[in-house]
Amino acid sequence: MSEFENTFETNLQKYAELAVKVGVNIQQGQTLVINAPIEASDFVHKVTKTAYQAGAKNVHVEWNDETLTLLKFQHAPDEAFTAFPTWKAKGFEEMAEDDAAFLTIHASNPDLLKEVDPKKVATANKTRAKAMYTFSTYIKSSKVSWSIVSVPTKDWAKKIFPDVSEKARIEKLWQSIFSITRVDQDDPVHAWHQHLETLKSKVEYMNDKKFAKLHYSGPGTDLSIELPQGHVWLGGGEKSQNGVFTVPNMPTEEIFTMPHKDGVNGTVKSTKPLNYSGNLIDEFQLTFKDGKVVDFDAEQGYNILKDLLDTDEGARRLGEVALVPHSSPISQSGLIFYNTLYDENASSHLALGATYPNCIEGGTKMDKEDLAQKGGNDSLIHVDFMMGSAEMNVDGETLDGQRIALMRNGEWVI
Amino acid sequence: MSEFENTFETNLQKYAELAVKVGVNIQQGQTLVINAPIEASDFVHKVTKTAYQAGAKNVHVEWNDETLTLLKFQHAPDEAFTAFPTWKAKGFEEMAEDDAAFLTIHASNPDLLKEVDPKKVATANKTRAKAMYTFSTYIKSSKVSWSIVSVPTKDWAKKIFPDVSEKARIEKLWQSIFSITRVDQDDPVHAWHQHLETLKSKVEYMNDKKFAKLHYSGPGTDLSIELPQGHVWLGGGEKSQNGVFTVPNMPTEEIFTMPHKDGVNGTVKSTKPLNYSGNLIDEFQLTFKDGKVVDFDAEQGYNILKDLLDTDEGARRLGEVALVPHSSPISQSGLIFYNTLYDENASSHLALGATYPNCIEGGTKMDKEDLAQKGGNDSLIHVDFMMGSAEMNVDGETLDGQRIALMRNGEWVI
Repeated sequence: MSEFENTFETNLQKYAELAVKVGVNIQQGQTLVINAPIEASDFVHKVTKTAYQAGAKNVHVEWNDETLTLLKFQHAPDEAFTAFPTWKAKGFEEMAEDDAAFLTIHASNPDLLKEVDPKKVATANKTRAKAMYTFSTYIKSSKVSWSIVSVPTKDWAKKIFPDVSEKARIEKLWQSIFSITRVDQDDPVHAWHQHLETLKSKVEYMNDKKFAKLHYSGPGTDLSIELPQGHVWLGGGEKSQNGVFTVPNMPTEEIFTMPHKDGVNGTVKSTKPLNYSGNLIDEFQLTFKDGKVVDFDAEQGYNILKDLLDTDEGARRLGEVALVPHSSPISQSGLIFYNTLYDENASSHLALGATYPNCIEGGTKMDKEDLAQKGGNDSLIHVDFMMGSAEMNVDGETLDGQRIALMRNGEWVI
Repeated sequence: MSEFENTFETNLQKYAELAVKVGVNIQQGQTLVINAPIEASDFVHKVTKTAYQAGAKNVHVEWNDETLTLLKFQHAPDEAFTAFPTWKAKGFEEMAEDDAAFLTIHASNPDLLKEVDPKKVATANKTRAKAMYTFSTYIKSSKVSWSIVSVPTKDWAKKIFPDVSEKARIEKLWQSIFSITRVDQDDPVHAWHQHLETLKSKVEYMNDKKFAKLHYSGPGTDLSIELPQGHVWLGGGEKSQNGVFTVPNMPTEEIFTMPHKDGVNGTVKSTKPLNYSGNLIDEFQLTFKDGKVVDFDAEQGYNILKDLLDTDEGARRLGEVALVPHSSPISQSGLIFYNTLYDENASSHLALGATYPNCIEGGTKMDKEDLAQKGGNDSLIHVDFMMGSAEMNVDGETLDGQRIALMRNGEWVI
């Protein structure tokens, strides 16, 4: 038995506890809904048992399976992509309204749909996003507790470590995940609480400054982003509307807030490939004028990016701005994960599409119109992309026009 | 590579085609709903691709996982067993109303719940049956196309072949399944059509005779069953209400009809163990008076049987009577499958609970009251149990009191 195998079961259990007790922070009598690939069944079983032991009333698992997704794109008629089971969308809404917590186990093959017509994929994504819109607002406004974690799957591990055996690459990916999520430390829960304190100090600094704008400069990037009045920086964990403190992303190294949907100008260049819906978009740049993407290009996945930007009016505007130091543990691993949960926490990033209402004072109580009036963007999509690097400088500009250095060469200087 | 491995992929594909083209007989533009254990994913993928190629508009898979079922029984609070997601039940109803076809891949561990309090299991079953009642009436009245097939799972194979390795027992079970379902024949679809003709000749004989009663005698069994006026024998395949010819069980060796719910008298002894909801009930007998079970006993699973009979008023009455010759291919395998789909087709059997409305003239158009008035039983349950053997004799009694030998020593004599 290898050293990895020796400690694997212990680490898997610690990881399950982290997801249940820190991630969604399950409460007595709550239902836990798990979205997971069937390949992750071993981990799902550990999470399920842990959740019951922590007091969950019920654990409901919605399994997914990328092979079925691919078979559908390969063989189903076009009409299949314009329909989504409304009863399933209603089910998610009902579980959310009943205060369930939602844990997503995210692990996707970055190349799954690379042979599929991008138009078909775009149609399917839009159909799904429309059907799940109400539920997605529950998530984005933290009406419910939710968290996302990843586990290795064969296809994902192969993309990161193509040159080793299947067994070795799964082990290597588990080791990376255990290290980055602090599972390999003696007391991961304690380590996480310490980490959250560090993020909190950055959040407090930024909220104290109430910057009017951020300025980014780096290779291919020269961008200014207006922050709306009353914007709120968040990072690490947050309270859901039910008062429970959760950590929605594990790992998380970012602090983030709401950009003004009409106040983005300049050009930004991506620094890592983006795995979007079974395809990679790489080496791309976006030019903004008054908040809107007016020009774009991509070396890989141009059509995917085009369809993404054409989803709706809000898809060409920003909904999130996030700062991550280049020295984050994920960045230090030297790996590209082709998984936004990991890559976005190795790099400062932005998101196209809908904003998080809790990133502005009183936002979770605002309707769509009020939020838009304050500068909050709405869209069927919310897609993060990485643009930070060791060459990135970021300044904050105060209301009275003073510029303060926030990051130099990718690192915090505050 | 073993001979088994050599032909396995071919046989798996032939089996998938049988399920899709003969079982549910998928039609152009129809949705196929597959209920399957996550362990059966390889077969599900083959079925899915085959269904699309045969013209399915969409394939929707509802995965299940017995480990989650067991964890819930072991760890969830009692209140979890009195709730069932109504949105999911509605979803099944909606898909049925939209003329989807339903394929169930049945493979369960017969000992899954043997350590669990039977009361809890009974509560969970009743809760589920109540929520799914409308959908189950769609199935029982063949409003939709449906079919059940089985594939090996580790736990199920272990129960049948405890003394060989895991790999060997899975292979042995596949070989049995391929043989019994005629998959190992050159043209399984043709072989099935021949087989269905044989069953049809028995069905026609019985429908021609319009027997008033059946009399069973064998070790521990002395039973008479009244058949209602207008009863219809079915067997092999049948037309769903949408006019599509389907084969609801694969394998199927039975011909069956509706008993009169008030016309069963005497005692019947089981001849094979019954796998009911993760538990075995074995060596049991039931005594009927005017259709109702008034006494019962069981060497194994007494409490499970008791809870089953106590589900509702109709659970103590019969809903199906089925004749299977003892020389059926399943019987000849010499195996006990601990899986009713297989065991019931090795043996004449009866079912406690709800009847099939298409087993009486005009039944699918009758409401519950009309059906009851004709002698059709209603219940939340429908549980088949095996009572045929090489020692079983069956006579038919005509309306004018004449007795005709139907089976002697378990074999047809007509």
